[in-house]
Amino acid sequence: MSAATPSESDRIEADYVIETAFDPEVAADAMAGEQSSGTFVPLPGETPELKARSAARVEALDRLDDVMTPSLPGAARPTDTIATARVTLSWPIDNLGPSLPNLVATVAGNLFELKQFSGLRITDIRLPDAFADAYGGPRFGVAGTRRLAGVTARPLIGTIIKPSVGLGPEETADLTRTLVAAGIDFIKDDELQSDGPACPFDERARAVMRVIDEDAERTGRKVMFAFNITGDLDQMRRRHDLVAEIGGSCVMASLNSVGLVGMIELGRHTALPIHAHRNGWGYLSRHPSLGWSYVAWQKIWRLAGADHMHVNGLSNKFCEPDDSVVQSARTCLEPMFVKKPMTVMPVFSSGQSAKQIFDTYEALGSADLIYAAGGGIMGHPDGSDAGVASLKQGWDAALSGVSLHDHAVTRPELARALEVYAT
Amino acid sequence: MSAATPSESDRIEADYVIETAFDPEVAADAMAGEQSSGTFVPLPGETPELKARSAARVEALDRLDDVMTPSLPGAARPTDTIATARVTLSWPIDNLGPSLPNLVATVAGNLFELKQFSGLRITDIRLPDAFADAYGGPRFGVAGTRRLAGVTARPLIGTIIKPSVGLGPEETADLTRTLVAAGIDFIKDDELQSDGPACPFDERARAVMRVIDEDAERTGRKVMFAFNITGDLDQMRRRHDLVAEIGGSCVMASLNSVGLVGMIELGRHTALPIHAHRNGWGYLSRHPSLGWSYVAWQKIWRLAGADHMHVNGLSNKFCEPDDSVVQSARTCLEPMFVKKPMTVMPVFSSGQSAKQIFDTYEALGSADLIYAAGGGIMGHPDGSDAGVASLKQGWDAALSGVSLHDHAVTRPELARALEVYAT
Repeated sequence: MSAATPSESDRIEADYVIETAFDPEVAADAMAGEQSSGTFVPLPGETPELKARSAARVEALDRLDDVMTPSLPGAARPTDTIATARVTLSWPIDNLGPSLPNLVATVAGNLFELKQFSGLRITDIRLPDAFADAYGGPRFGVAGTRRLAGVTARPLIGTIIKPSVGLGPEETADLTRTLVAAGIDFIKDDELQSDGPACPFDERARAVMRVIDEDAERTGRKVMFAFNITGDLDQMRRRHDLVAEIGGSCVMASLNSVGLVGMIELGRHTALPIHAHRNGWGYLSRHPSLGWSYVAWQKIWRLAGADHMHVNGLSNKFCEPDDSVVQSARTCLEPMFVKKPMTVMPVFSSGQSAKQIFDTYEALGSADLIYAAGGGIMGHPDGSDAGVASLKQGWDAALSGVSLHDHAVTRPELARALEVYAT
Repeated sequence: MSAATPSESDRIEADYVIETAFDPEVAADAMAGEQSSGTFVPLPGETPELKARSAARVEALDRLDDVMTPSLPGAARPTDTIATARVTLSWPIDNLGPSLPNLVATVAGNLFELKQFSGLRITDIRLPDAFADAYGGPRFGVAGTRRLAGVTARPLIGTIIKPSVGLGPEETADLTRTLVAAGIDFIKDDELQSDGPACPFDERARAVMRVIDEDAERTGRKVMFAFNITGDLDQMRRRHDLVAEIGGSCVMASLNSVGLVGMIELGRHTALPIHAHRNGWGYLSRHPSLGWSYVAWQKIWRLAGADHMHVNGLSNKFCEPDDSVVQSARTCLEPMFVKKPMTVMPVFSSGQSAKQIFDTYEALGSADLIYAAGGGIMGHPDGSDAGVASLKQGWDAALSGVSLHDHAVTRPELARALEVYAT
């Protein structure tokens, strides 16, 4: 079953890539045992009836290449051969019910510490419909975000308040004034800026919304500002309510800082799209033989209610290769359940400018995304107006199937951007 | 400043071990910039005044050995030398205020994805007193747990309900009957068992508490059972309230499944000790050059309100070496703040039996711990009574400074355990 196909089983399924010096089938059985009715030793209570009812099953095992050296330390080495393999496990939903927190303990949990493995990464999960009934998923998604931002057909052109921290409320509002005047669709707080004494949330939100409202009166379209409400639950609710009350149209939260139960609560409370920031993603994923693939991970947050999910960007300033970025973005737009697709808007950012636009559209095949640039706007030599214009022109080109360079012939902002951001 | 010394600064500090092919000082500056007022490119708004107010500082940098090959893929390699170094950064608390979720975004966040690093691990954090004012920390800790469990001076002898999943409520209660009859102090649900249809929480809790109450009437001492309440927030609160109502004395939650905001809420709500399960810890820590050290990580959960923290065990069945286990356990017992120590009870588990007791006590220098064994109790050839007895005898020996083998001469349960679990 491909990652794109929603599950129609009443069992929970998870895919892994494993690396082991054990017989891979024996190692896969150990995974299934550890995460269900088995343990290190045979147990008196583990009867055939109990196993039939509760045991995880190894549904598939495809041997991949052997490797020469273990990727992670600490594994046992009963043989000289270190195999890698794709493994699919399944669990009866009756073990845990449709509970996201207990799902994480079941499909991930202790697996990564098992001595059998010198590599273990979870690559996908497929869930029974009961999860779609238990969790609301994104309340706004692509359509709701487009409606609130007043942007149809093309991506939302976005940017980030920088410096990340250090600006006060009025300075943030001043920068917002420059950005909305430049024709931006979307602005976000940095993930480091929430409600510190140096830039209190309420003052900042009110100052920013005054600017956005003034602009909206002129243009008839309200720029979407993702206010970073990350904090304790009562703080997040209160900040959310303030943003809604003063006419804001988006809130942001850091997934790995808030955690799953907090995001589920926010998802149930929210009247605005949730812009989900993935900072911390590196510690979950940076080693290719450990941790989480984005494909598996993002499904959990979509169920919890994220509307926008960060996916990095092509030719980014971080460590992630382009094919991984494209896979992440695509998976956000693939349905999770037949009856409830729960698709979310991927957010491209990190070192983005006009130059990556054509390739981004070609790779994704969709304009349902937020395309966020910092230096690609503020660093444009002709100013941020020209920066925003260059991005819009770039997307016009890509969506019409015209090359960026051809399109730039009569568009000086795009031409300058392609020149400046060439390297 | 050692890890054991609480901070007296009003800046937040974090320690890291980095691996980089850049000049380590340049790389450390990039960390400080990325996590405060800087970014990839110089910014017009990043004035000297703003930097003085908001920038993170590199407080220390100690060069360690060079390495031959990068530990993680994706890093830039401007030079052939790959250095490692210890780095300490600090931040003004005014950037974020005493907020745990925003602390995580600040000290961890995007750092692990930076192209400068082929390795980056956070090894410790030190926090201003404002965090101790904002968060309650453990409500019970060592003293409260001892009081509720009726165990003084020696460790709590604990065990885990196994099979992990598959037993129904009455079967769980039957197993509990065997365990309490054996003289156990502490029992926990498995982290895979919360409230699935196959073993509903309420029925299980009521059935188990009937057994524990009967036993308590006989013995005058109530065995502590950590009921796994992991779930959505309303579910956790409701299950907690049920446990409290029917006279239970402990609840358990999976930290990585619930997440920080959920644990903070549970910490504020709870009237019972919180037994914090660390399943998922492997994906945060298994690669030695990536992710979190337990020393840094456990401080966050202590502030949030954990009372018991899992630390694995000596000669465990997982991948972790003993020195790491000992460091984890010690750090749980070290004060976090001068005015509010927030010490928590370390939980030793995984392949534990009588044989590791002497070494565990010698390494930790404290009896303030939960010593949990599964096979070390149920697998004792003379039954679980003998299993529990062997563990109590082992701790009597260790606390009196007598070797396990000498003590076993007149104690057949301990003697058999040392024989059976020798390998």
